Amino acid sequence: MSKEKLRVIPLGGLGEIGKNMMLLEYGDDIIAVDAGVMFPDEEMLGVDLVIPDMTYLREKAEKFRGIAVTHGHEDHIGALPYVLGEFEAPVYASRLTHGLIRVKLRESKGLKDAPIEEIRPGERIRMGKFDVEFFRVCHSIPDAMGVAIRTPVGTVIHTGDFKFDHTPVDGRASDLAKLASFGSEGVALLMSDSTYAEVQGFTPSEQLVGETMLRVIGQAEGRVIVATFASLISRVQQIAEAAIKHNRRIAIVGRSMVENVQMALKLGYLKFPEGTLARIDEVEMLPPNRVVIITTGAQGEPTSALVRMANEDHREVALREGDTVIISATPIPGNETLVHKTVDNLLRLGVKVINDRMDTVHVHGHAAQEELKTMISLTKPKHFVPIHGEYRHLVAHAAIAKSLGISEKRTFIMEDGDVLELDHEHAHRHGRVQSGPIYVDGLGRWETESVVLRDRRMLSKDGIVVVFLVVDSRTSRPVRKPEIVSYGFLEEEESQVLTQAKGLIIETLSHDMGQVEIPFVQTKVKEALGQFFYKATKRRPMIIPVAMGL
Amino acid sequence: MSKEKLRVIPLGGLGEIGKNMMLLEYGDDIIAVDAGVMFPDEEMLGVDLVIPDMTYLREKAEKFRGIAVTHGHEDHIGALPYVLGEFEAPVYASRLTHGLIRVKLRESKGLKDAPIEEIRPGERIRMGKFDVEFFRVCHSIPDAMGVAIRTPVGTVIHTGDFKFDHTPVDGRASDLAKLASFGSEGVALLMSDSTYAEVQGFTPSEQLVGETMLRVIGQAEGRVIVATFASLISRVQQIAEAAIKHNRRIAIVGRSMVENVQMALKLGYLKFPEGTLARIDEVEMLPPNRVVIITTGAQGEPTSALVRMANEDHREVALREGDTVIISATPIPGNETLVHKTVDNLLRLGVKVINDRMDTVHVHGHAAQEELKTMISLTKPKHFVPIHGEYRHLVAHAAIAKSLGISEKRTFIMEDGDVLELDHEHAHRHGRVQSGPIYVDGLGRWETESVVLRDRRMLSKDGIVVVFLVVDSRTSRPVRKPEIVSYGFLEEEESQVLTQAKGLIIETLSHDMGQVEIPFVQTKVKEALGQFFYKATKRRPMIIPVAMGL
Repeated sequence: MSKEKLRVIPLGGLGEIGKNMMLLEYGDDIIAVDAGVMFPDEEMLGVDLVIPDMTYLREKAEKFRGIAVTHGHEDHIGALPYVLGEFEAPVYASRLTHGLIRVKLRESKGLKDAPIEEIRPGERIRMGKFDVEFFRVCHSIPDAMGVAIRTPVGTVIHTGDFKFDHTPVDGRASDLAKLASFGSEGVALLMSDSTYAEVQGFTPSEQLVGETMLRVIGQAEGRVIVATFASLISRVQQIAEAAIKHNRRIAIVGRSMVENVQMALKLGYLKFPEGTLARIDEVEMLPPNRVVIITTGAQGEPTSALVRMANEDHREVALREGDTVIISATPIPGNETLVHKTVDNLLRLGVKVINDRMDTVHVHGHAAQEELKTMISLTKPKHFVPIHGEYRHLVAHAAIAKSLGISEKRTFIMEDGDVLELDHEHAHRHGRVQSGPIYVDGLGRWETESVVLRDRRMLSKDGIVVVFLVVDSRTSRPVRKPEIVSYGFLEEEESQVLTQAKGLIIETLSHDMGQVEIPFVQTKVKEALGQFFYKATKRRPMIIPVAMGL
Repeated sequence: MSKEKLRVIPLGGLGEIGKNMMLLEYGDDIIAVDAGVMFPDEEMLGVDLVIPDMTYLREKAEKFRGIAVTHGHEDHIGALPYVLGEFEAPVYASRLTHGLIRVKLRESKGLKDAPIEEIRPGERIRMGKFDVEFFRVCHSIPDAMGVAIRTPVGTVIHTGDFKFDHTPVDGRASDLAKLASFGSEGVALLMSDSTYAEVQGFTPSEQLVGETMLRVIGQAEGRVIVATFASLISRVQQIAEAAIKHNRRIAIVGRSMVENVQMALKLGYLKFPEGTLARIDEVEMLPPNRVVIITTGAQGEPTSALVRMANEDHREVALREGDTVIISATPIPGNETLVHKTVDNLLRLGVKVINDRMDTVHVHGHAAQEELKTMISLTKPKHFVPIHGEYRHLVAHAAIAKSLGISEKRTFIMEDGDVLELDHEHAHRHGRVQSGPIYVDGLGRWETESVVLRDRRMLSKDGIVVVFLVVDSRTSRPVRKPEIVSYGFLEEEESQVLTQAKGLIIETLSHDMGQVEIPFVQTKVKEALGQFFYKATKRRPMIIPVAMGL
């Protein structure tokens, strides 16, 4: 038996622990499960994306054997362009996930031919000393998988995002038998999705949504517009089937929805009878009760199709009284206000709105408490690490594990960068590696304490004033009137404040100070203006004096 | 019978219609119900407060007869310093509301002696041609009232914010008999609180929270910290009573909580036995199971006491394992993420957290559907205007009214600035007056299309670059190296971008262009830099060239 230990290291993201990347390291081999991004919150001004800090991987790049991808959502595949741009590593993914990754990499220079291998559930792949077996799980996107990783110290199961839908729309249920067989074999460590660990009971089957769609579309007298996530392929299938049963044709609107539907049709994940799909100008010719429009914007995203329609700002679709809009989603925390505004604007147009609080027009894709218990009971792990959730979700999941007899000593609530070490018998925490979010802004890559973000926060508060001053090098007196520009500080009717400020600068520098240092002149100006501006406006802009001696 | 019509005009705010101010105008008289503020959302960068646009009132200032205030929350009294600073008008308010207004006006120059009259429920006040009768309602702050306004065209009822709590903590229930008597008298128009019109059933009594507090505090082994709104005086009373029954002393922490408790004790709205209250340093000496701390921060406000405690950053209270934190509130939409982060950080400290999803530690202060029906049934209005809610809440409230036989023709869903005209028989819409939010930032007052806010949004996106250039007036060539300052654009390790930019400017202006216009030089520099910066960083900062001819 080797003395070597297995090291497990979650890397993230924002809040959700181990969501974006999970590293496993043993001896000379490192593999990753997933490589995803997070989206910036409103405090990260101007940031495009957030990726995990991969410093640790960078230091051990020669050990990196590849990435097992669980499913095709952005928070699991979105960082692949960054990872593959830097590291040489094969990627393993299911058919649909593979398709989504290819689309993504096509947009990245030099990654068109990156090594992405298509994997079917049940396949086993050798990655260094790791033997990785993929198994099927259900989630809100088809073709999701978890991984069972046989390591020299035992089997590690990573569930990916999952739920146990026994009647999934695509007929492909989570592989409970496989999970049970891992359990009989012996599982050293289970890492399981905690997103809905606070929710009691079972997550309902996607089928329920189909039944609601059938009823609601049947009752609607005019057009029906359904907004949902572009990746919810099974949802789109169900909406389409309900439409067809009620003799309606379907138009797809919104860039990401169009792209995903095309891809899913091509790969066979969506199946419509001939003549079902129509262009938006074609359905405009049909009677309203012969039309369903499937579109994006269920989260109230400002540039999405539904939001444009709600604002009467969509190029192709003008909503009107008689239309029914179904919002087939739950607002992601932080998006509530955007969704509410969209609903308000839809109602202002006289449209009928149905959301998930009014009817079963959405179910989510994560396991609730009884399913989490089932996962633990099937796999019977020796050690347990709750993943994919914010800290409170991990705490709730740990309590569930405890109720099933997995003691607190065998459960590890980890944060991103924490290291768990396992040998054949034991698991214990072993320090931390560098981790945390990396903010991507254009070509920039910034850490949490970024000066750029701090400055943007300051600029966004009270704006900026820049003063340009040419002074006589011998007397430090201005040789001409200073120039002042200000942004985000004064409204037009307050422009006299700047005129007064110019006078104040000249006054401040009016007596011959002799040959002084430029920084001293700048500080004097800054102090005088700071006091003056606060008195005049009760605001405190950034003040940047730039003086030049001539 | 006069030909004159009554005009009803809601003014607001952000989203919630008629929330901050309701104007009634008849002939030469105008009165207002409430004068409140809204708090800015994250898009209103740097804004302190939002008040209603009072242009209409300003134009008719000589008609203004006064303000009837329904209760002491900020969204109903917060604009009084602005209104009273501009208009001479008496204010009528209940005892507690009066106390809160006085505290608020003390901070405003020249308003210390503004005419605020204390009113008891049942009192009638003459305000021009309006006869205003106040009646008691329950809400989440004591001493709330609605108003019945007798006008020459009939009685108008404005409910204020209300719920029907039949067993309120202070023993003062909503005055159903009075509402019924208005109903028998005849009500021309009911304007009723729509905040919870989407919620079925009845809002539970505040008493339920008392029962939970008694049980939870009884079960806690260590200290109990309860975070709630400072204005929830009855909540504080119940927490205190539960603490006392379990032989615990109480410390109050957090500026607004301390201020409100002091005021409520002074006015008799809070009653503690002697020796119940303790200073925070006193309770530090007591065994943990003899201590309750009541504090602020239930919405995850970044500078609040609870958030500081959660971040181990509070001057006086260090939380530890064994403590129980009760969050006695529901996150206001938009605050979910802040509250979640706070809970995560509390759990990281090993503290037990109880929130409103886990136990009845909070009830809200607005009527649900059955109470709204009761209000309509009691008052039997001829016309109905749902108020105090976002558009979808008004739509839901209108549907409730319809289910009680108030036809769509007699219901008016209004937006801020809309005018409703009433005579003895009819009501109809009659155009709009100027309205909308006014953003208060220091001494500035800005409208929606503010340039300052637009600039702040731009600054917050990719930062700013200011170039200062002294050129030879005859050749337009730079007489010395340009100065460049940038904020919120480049991280330290990108500083070579600015060095290169300086070179580029010199190159751009290197050939003798002869005597040219300064704006032309500026445009040339801006274009060259814009392209260069985007190529170098894939970001687009604001670029401000300032050129001076010498």
